[in-house]
Amino acid sequence: MAPPFLIHPIGTVRRQGDRTFIDIDPAFGDGLLGIDGFSHIVVCYWLDRSDTPEARGVLRTHPRANPSNPLTGVFATHSPRRPNPVAISLCRLMSVQGTTLEVDRIDAMDDSPVIDIKCFIPSTRFEKETVRVPDWV
Amino acid sequence: MAPPFLIHPIGTVRRQGDRTFIDIDPAFGDGLLGIDGFSHIVVCYWLDRSDTPEARGVLRTHPRANPSNPLTGVFATHSPRRPNPVAISLCRLMSVQGTTLEVDRIDAMDDSPVIDIKCFIPSTRFEKETVRVPDWV
Repeated sequence: MAPPFLIHPIGTVRRQGDRTFIDIDPAFGDGLLGIDGFSHIVVCYWLDRSDTPEARGVLRTHPRANPSNPLTGVFATHSPRRPNPVAISLCRLMSVQGTTLEVDRIDAMDDSPVIDIKCFIPSTRFEKETVRVPDWV
Repeated sequence: MAPPFLIHPIGTVRRQGDRTFIDIDPAFGDGLLGIDGFSHIVVCYWLDRSDTPEARGVLRTHPRANPSNPLTGVFATHSPRRPNPVAISLCRLMSVQGTTLEVDRIDAMDDSPVIDIKCFIPSTRFEKETVRVPDWV
């Protein structure tokens, strides 16, 4: 078994009333240069409430916690209970103040560890390709 | 400093001629149930060639390794050199054979560790929102 890879948090999700902030650790602040040139960012965060051996052992689930949805492999869902509890959200970047980003919304719970931020560059592929999803979606 | 989070690979990228496969570790095969209902998947993989203290310490870079692009924070790029070398690719799922997925293409190098697969569910938000990117894109 290969040794695990190590993820170090770079920041934290902070919910304040109906606003959502991402506080980047000032040690990583240099990594934000130019981010205000983008309207949208991809936020990768850690589902720390699902970082337990039990939750990480789940391989099948009923999507959206709805028992009437068919039993589905976690890799065919966005379930937080999965072997590596990484989550990805596409967010509109509202403002940048120092090392604090304000975003429009995110599914993350308050205080979730942020592990990466990437710029969002739109693709033209979906203008040409048809996207297909199963009925439960 | 909080302890790091641990990522365990769930599979591997395999390039074969001009085709690209993702071999999921059979121990995680149950997680694929129903994935063939989706035309596209999100593949998260580990940039293992950038998993060095030096590469993980890079916070600013010239995007696309082009010195004429402005110096930019890594969180405003897709650079492989970043604190947590996680990469995300949206792929068309061509076929599923046992625990092997064939995808149309992926930026990943051969033998890159795969850390998560998620179904792709299109969003309607970009029909309503304007996406803005800086000149270097």
